[in-house]
Amino acid sequence: MSDAVSLEITPSKKAAGTIVMKFGGTSVGDLDRIRAVARRVQAERDTGARIVVVVSAMAGVTNRLVADCEALDPLADPREYDAVVASGEQVTSGLVAIALRRLGVPARSYQGWQIPLRTDEAHGKAQIEAVEGGALLASLDVGEVPVVAGFQGVGPDGRIATLGRGGSDTSAVAVAAAIRADRCDIYTDVDGVYTTDPRIVSRARKLDRITYEEMLELASVGAKVLQTRSVGLAMREKIRVRVLSSFAEPGDVQNGSLVVDEDEILEKQVIAGIAYSRDEAKISIRQIPDRPGIAAAIFRPLMAANVNIDMIVQSTGVDGMTNLTFTVGRSDQATALSVLEGARETIQYGELQTSRDVVKISVVGVGMRSHAGIANTMFSTLAERGINIQVISTSEIKISVLIDAEYTELAMRALHTAYGLDAQ
Amino acid sequence: MSDAVSLEITPSKKAAGTIVMKFGGTSVGDLDRIRAVARRVQAERDTGARIVVVVSAMAGVTNRLVADCEALDPLADPREYDAVVASGEQVTSGLVAIALRRLGVPARSYQGWQIPLRTDEAHGKAQIEAVEGGALLASLDVGEVPVVAGFQGVGPDGRIATLGRGGSDTSAVAVAAAIRADRCDIYTDVDGVYTTDPRIVSRARKLDRITYEEMLELASVGAKVLQTRSVGLAMREKIRVRVLSSFAEPGDVQNGSLVVDEDEILEKQVIAGIAYSRDEAKISIRQIPDRPGIAAAIFRPLMAANVNIDMIVQSTGVDGMTNLTFTVGRSDQATALSVLEGARETIQYGELQTSRDVVKISVVGVGMRSHAGIANTMFSTLAERGINIQVISTSEIKISVLIDAEYTELAMRALHTAYGLDAQ
Repeated sequence: MSDAVSLEITPSKKAAGTIVMKFGGTSVGDLDRIRAVARRVQAERDTGARIVVVVSAMAGVTNRLVADCEALDPLADPREYDAVVASGEQVTSGLVAIALRRLGVPARSYQGWQIPLRTDEAHGKAQIEAVEGGALLASLDVGEVPVVAGFQGVGPDGRIATLGRGGSDTSAVAVAAAIRADRCDIYTDVDGVYTTDPRIVSRARKLDRITYEEMLELASVGAKVLQTRSVGLAMREKIRVRVLSSFAEPGDVQNGSLVVDEDEILEKQVIAGIAYSRDEAKISIRQIPDRPGIAAAIFRPLMAANVNIDMIVQSTGVDGMTNLTFTVGRSDQATALSVLEGARETIQYGELQTSRDVVKISVVGVGMRSHAGIANTMFSTLAERGINIQVISTSEIKISVLIDAEYTELAMRALHTAYGLDAQ
Repeated sequence: MSDAVSLEITPSKKAAGTIVMKFGGTSVGDLDRIRAVARRVQAERDTGARIVVVVSAMAGVTNRLVADCEALDPLADPREYDAVVASGEQVTSGLVAIALRRLGVPARSYQGWQIPLRTDEAHGKAQIEAVEGGALLASLDVGEVPVVAGFQGVGPDGRIATLGRGGSDTSAVAVAAAIRADRCDIYTDVDGVYTTDPRIVSRARKLDRITYEEMLELASVGAKVLQTRSVGLAMREKIRVRVLSSFAEPGDVQNGSLVVDEDEILEKQVIAGIAYSRDEAKISIRQIPDRPGIAAAIFRPLMAANVNIDMIVQSTGVDGMTNLTFTVGRSDQATALSVLEGARETIQYGELQTSRDVVKISVVGVGMRSHAGIANTMFSTLAERGINIQVISTSEIKISVLIDAEYTELAMRALHTAYGLDAQ
C-alpha cells in the first residue's frame, strides 16, 4: 500500500492543462472501442490540453494470459508470469498509438521499461518506487501524445514487473504525479462514483465530488470503481482524479465524479456512500478458557501464516469461558482453519465454527467526525428490520457491520434512505 | 541481407557442447506443444549440453496481431506495429520458461531489449547489428536455460524492432554466433531439407547434409524450410545449422538435415535440390525502339520505385524493334506496371503485357562448378515434355527457368528423375 513516486528528474516547468487519460479494459475492448478512445483523446487535445494516455489490456486478454500460465504451472515463476501477462498492455499501447496517428495525432507508445517506471522486486504484485518523468515530458514538449502501457514497470532485476490486479489505475496516478498533471481521468464503464451500488439500490445517486479519504475507505470496504492503492497515491500526491464513462458522449457535462481534497468540497454531506463486501468468511472459536494472553495465542499463529484479520468481537460464555468471532477474506479461510486446528492443544478451545453466509456493510463519510448519532442511525435502522448485527467495527470515518447475507439488499436500501442519500 | 554480429563483449571461454534450439510457430502452437518443447529441451540438457532456446510466436498469433494493426491503419507506424507484433514472441518466451521450470529446469526468458539484441532503425524489417553475449553466457554459467524471444530486438531509438517474417531463424543464428555455439538446431514441422517439395514430388529425398551455399540458393529461389537471411548469416559466421522436426521422437537419428561447410561433405552430389516459386509476375514490353540507353531508361525508374527485378530476357522483334521480358515479385507487379505506364512517353514502347500464370523452377548444386552439361539436361528434359522455357537465368551454382505454371508438377518430377535425385 505504499507506492512511492520520487521524481528522479526535475520536471520541466508545469504547463497549463496537462491531463492523464486512463482507459480500462472494456474501454479498449475491441478495435471499434480503440477508435472511439482515439477520437476522445483527440477531442480533449483539441481543447489545448497536453495529454498522456494510460491503457489497460483489452478486456479478457489478461484472464486468458493468466489462465495459460496457470495451466502450465499453478505456481508459475512470477517473473515469467509478468513477462507473459504484461504483453496485454503492450499490445493496447501500440494499437491506441496507431489509432491516434491514423487521426493525425502524433502519438507513441511507452512500455514500463522505456519510461522507466521502476518497481520493487515483488513480481506479480509490485509496488511503484519511482516514475521518471523526463521521457514523457520530452514527448509532450514536441507535441506528442505518449501512450503508456499500464499495470507494468521494470524491477531492480531489469525484468518486467506487474503491479497486480487493477494496477493500471495506480500506473495512471503515478504517471500523473511524475509529470505534475492537473488531473487524472479514469475512464471506465460507469459514469462516476455512486452513493452505493445502483444494481442493488435503484435510488443510488452519482456524487459530483468525493474526498480522497472517503473514496479510499469505500474502495477498501468493497466499492470496485477505483483501485485502493491508486486512491491512496492520489491522496498523498494531491492528484485530482476524475472517474467517468468512456461510453458517454465526449463533452457530456453530466459524466463523471471528481475525487479531491476535503476543502474543495463546499456542500459537505455527512455520509458519502454505502459499500458492501461479500468476500467475507466468519470464524468463531467457542469455549475458550478466559485467561491472560489467550488472544495473543490465537492471533499470533494466524498472522504468522499471513492471514489478514478484519473484524473481531469477543463475547462471554458460561462457566468463565469466552467466545471469539472474527472475519477473514474468503481466500484466507482454509488457511485460518488449518492453523487453528493445529493450535487446538495450545489454546484448548471447545469448538470451531465457520460460515460464508455473511456480508459486510459499511457506511463512509467525513461528516462522522463532527456529527453524533451516525452509528445509532445504523443500529436502529437495522433493528427495525429485525436484522441482527453479528460484528461491528469502526474507524474515524467508517462504520462496518457484519450481517446475515440474505439481508444484504434490504439493509442497503434501508440505510440508503435513512442517511438521506436517495436520489430525488 | 547483411545482418552483422559484432561481439561487443569477449565471450567467456567456449564450453563443450553449447546448442541453440529454435522452435517455430507450429512447434509452440498450443500449451501441449509447449510442454513437449520443454521435455525436448530437458532431454538435450540431460546429455550435458548447455542450451539456449529461441522461440517464435505461437502459430496464428502474429497473423492476428498484424491484422489488428492493419485494420486500424493499413499504413500503421512501423514502430508501433513492432511494439504490438513483438508481444507474440514475448508471451511464448515466458510460457516456455514456465514449462521448463515446471520440469525442474532453471530457465528464464529474455526479450530482445534485455539481451540486448541491437538492430538498425528499419522497424518492421530490421537488420541485426549486434548481439551482446554477456547476459546469456552469464545465465549459462549459472546453469540456466535462457529462453530468447525471437524475431525482435531493440533499435537505436530504444524501441522494439522486429526482423521481418521468418526473423526468428535469424535471431537463433545470431545468438548462436554471439555465444559461439557449437550448433544451431532449427525445430520446425518438417524433418529436414529435401531434394524438393515432397508434396509435389513423392520421390523427394531428405538430405543428410547440404552446403551453406546450396541452402542459401534454394532458400532464395523458393524453398521455405529456412529463412534466406539466417542461412547467409550462418555461412558467414560458420554456424552449423541443423533443420529438424519437433514432432519426431527425441533421439530419432533419422530426424534432421545438417547445413555445413562444403568441406564437411564427403560424398558430394552434383545437384542438391530443386525449388520452385509461384511468387512471380512476368512483364513484357513490346516494340521498343532499339537505341542505346533504352534498358537504362526502362530499369532506372523501376529501381527508383524499389521494384526488385529478377530474370530478364531481350528478344528482337520485327522492324528494328526489340522486346523485353522480365519478372518481379507479385507484390511489386502493380507498382511496376504503373511506373512503366508513366514512362510510356519517354520509352516510346508499343505494348505492355503481364501475366501471373508462370512459375520459376530452379536447380541448385555446388557440383555445377565442376560438371558440364547440367544446363543441357534441364533444357532437353523440359523439351522432351514439350515445355517451353520463357526466361532463363543462371548463377555459379544455380539454373532457373520460367515456364507456364500449368507444367509445374510435370517439370519438377521430370527434372528430379533426370538429375538422379529420386529416392530408392
